[in-house]
Amino acid sequence: MTPTDIVKRPAGRWLAGTGPVSDVALSTRVRLARNLADLPFPSRLNAAGAEEAVSRVKSALPARTEDPAGAPKTASPEGLPGKLQLYRLSAFTPLERLALVEKHLISPQHARRESGAAVVLSDDESVSIMVNEEDHLRIQCLVSGLELEEAWQLACRVDDLLERKLDYAFDPQLGYLTACPSNTGTGMRASVMVHLPALVMTHQHGAIFNALAKVGVVVRGLYGEGTEASGNIFQVSNQTTLGQPEQEVLSHLMGVSMQVIEHERAARERLFREHPDLVEDRVWRAYGILTSARSISSQEAMSLLSDLRLGIDLRVIPHVEARVFNELLVQISPAHLQVVEGRDLETGQRDIRRAALIRQRIKGGEARRLDVKP
Amino acid sequence: MTPTDIVKRPAGRWLAGTGPVSDVALSTRVRLARNLADLPFPSRLNAAGAEEAVSRVKSALPARTEDPAGAPKTASPEGLPGKLQLYRLSAFTPLERLALVEKHLISPQHARRESGAAVVLSDDESVSIMVNEEDHLRIQCLVSGLELEEAWQLACRVDDLLERKLDYAFDPQLGYLTACPSNTGTGMRASVMVHLPALVMTHQHGAIFNALAKVGVVVRGLYGEGTEASGNIFQVSNQTTLGQPEQEVLSHLMGVSMQVIEHERAARERLFREHPDLVEDRVWRAYGILTSARSISSQEAMSLLSDLRLGIDLRVIPHVEARVFNELLVQISPAHLQVVEGRDLETGQRDIRRAALIRQRIKGGEARRLDVKP
Repeated sequence: MTPTDIVKRPAGRWLAGTGPVSDVALSTRVRLARNLADLPFPSRLNAAGAEEAVSRVKSALPARTEDPAGAPKTASPEGLPGKLQLYRLSAFTPLERLALVEKHLISPQHARRESGAAVVLSDDESVSIMVNEEDHLRIQCLVSGLELEEAWQLACRVDDLLERKLDYAFDPQLGYLTACPSNTGTGMRASVMVHLPALVMTHQHGAIFNALAKVGVVVRGLYGEGTEASGNIFQVSNQTTLGQPEQEVLSHLMGVSMQVIEHERAARERLFREHPDLVEDRVWRAYGILTSARSISSQEAMSLLSDLRLGIDLRVIPHVEARVFNELLVQISPAHLQVVEGRDLETGQRDIRRAALIRQRIKGGEARRLDVKP
Repeated sequence: MTPTDIVKRPAGRWLAGTGPVSDVALSTRVRLARNLADLPFPSRLNAAGAEEAVSRVKSALPARTEDPAGAPKTASPEGLPGKLQLYRLSAFTPLERLALVEKHLISPQHARRESGAAVVLSDDESVSIMVNEEDHLRIQCLVSGLELEEAWQLACRVDDLLERKLDYAFDPQLGYLTACPSNTGTGMRASVMVHLPALVMTHQHGAIFNALAKVGVVVRGLYGEGTEASGNIFQVSNQTTLGQPEQEVLSHLMGVSMQVIEHERAARERLFREHPDLVEDRVWRAYGILTSARSISSQEAMSLLSDLRLGIDLRVIPHVEARVFNELLVQISPAHLQVVEGRDLETGQRDIRRAALIRQRIKGGEARRLDVKP
């Protein structure tokens, strides 16, 4: 599978829109920071050292054989979702690297690495391992809905698999050693991606996020640290990695996430009960614009898709699947549009392609039945 | 036919969206101001005098017989479009009188008359005669498209018919005498209702209207003098009634109207050629909002309907009939919505009814085919 194929292939399984409380929780992510014992951290690693780290990770992956057509002959090993394959970032164009960020498979920082960096991916994109980001390894597992335990178990399986062949930097007192002290200890960050349109509409999100900060839970935007909350989507994650076992952190985050989710559900219910006309009008207008506009900016699209998704969850708009919303969040991103088009596009051209893609995805079925140009 | 039936019946024939250059010219109106020779003008008329004027007009109308079911037995006399029937304004509720204004059958001033006023209507609403407005008679003929000659001929036939039984105030030197000197002479005002979205979008309309004023042509809003140009619809009409034969006035107005229409067509063509994406996006968004919104103000609806109509004329939106646009202009008006509903409605309730009506009229056919709630 070429780097372009990876960007173009259907959205990962974690965007399926299924799983527990998927009306609010879009997905769950667990990532583990790990480093190789005898190599300096990536920021202090020279080219040869970086290459050494990549090589070691590659050789630690389960062996696999492929038939001439390229399909793997072996079943996925160790309960992993399909084969794991390592790609050097230099094999991707800068645009493709940005598309990987949009798919949440690598971080914006990792996308800027020119050489000595790699990413390991599973076919269904539920597992991705950044090699030589801030740490030698950043194992990330993504699942649909609120599934902290499932994501954690998957991360553990990948971690165990790698640890059989790799010697991790581990201190009996401190735990896993990391480039930044804030990750030392478990090296684990778990986060839940939540869609909070009603809390934002009713201006309750600020107060709730402040309360979360006091119990060691941080809220970030769609693409992690320092990014904005586009489309009313937020990432709720733990701050602590030191002095608390993973299960305790996960259980705490689970409880807090459920509270946020219940707040959002209550806000939706109250909003719809007290202002049904206003809510119906808002979500139907979003549907109308999304299925009709010929040009749309990323920001407007995210905002309207958020309204549409609210309408889907409130059953005001029953005939659109939640999956469409989740997948579009990724597909309408600038780099994705350009990789699919096969060339650089100006902002105005992207806005036209974005509008066409949204119409096609939302109205595709209807338009065919209508025999009207979508 | 009861007053309520009149308001509720389908839109008049002049809203058919047919006729010459109907891509820009929605309709043509010719009105004649006439007064009875031996009665003071309405503003100086007491109750008995007003009643006398109404009675005389009524008896001047062609006699007709009706079968028990209420359908006229006689064909329309004198080449008139159906029978002419007189209704006292006191038979209408204040709301129904406002609905007659929205149908362009009486003036806002006439709607405020409590007693001693009447209106004569033909079945297809192409003829309406206000009795005891500013003058004893205001004969108005409305036709679809740019049809000054047809509207004028129709007005003449009505005028001739009435003049056989009524003694008009006429001075051989001055012509027809009227309450306001600005109408004296021919008593004729001819106007063309034009839809000028492209001239407004490109900010050319102001300069054009100024130029028109210099050649004796005035431009007014949708409901005549002192009203705003809602939905980019304007009324272009002659200013002169004294010292110029009707045919000359009509021919001058025809020439000027065609110039305005050609300016609008050129502006549309240029706009679409130079900014096709922008135009397509704008008209499709209007379509999307109009077919989806659950609540919409009169002003927003007029503005979006104007965009939609532009899309219909540019064949960007080929599957919506122009007639729908013309009829909605009338049907979404506040008094119409309330008369149809049979009760007073708050603004918010009207906005909801308006949105439902627009969806139903534009998407009705599609929704049935889709088997989806409109």
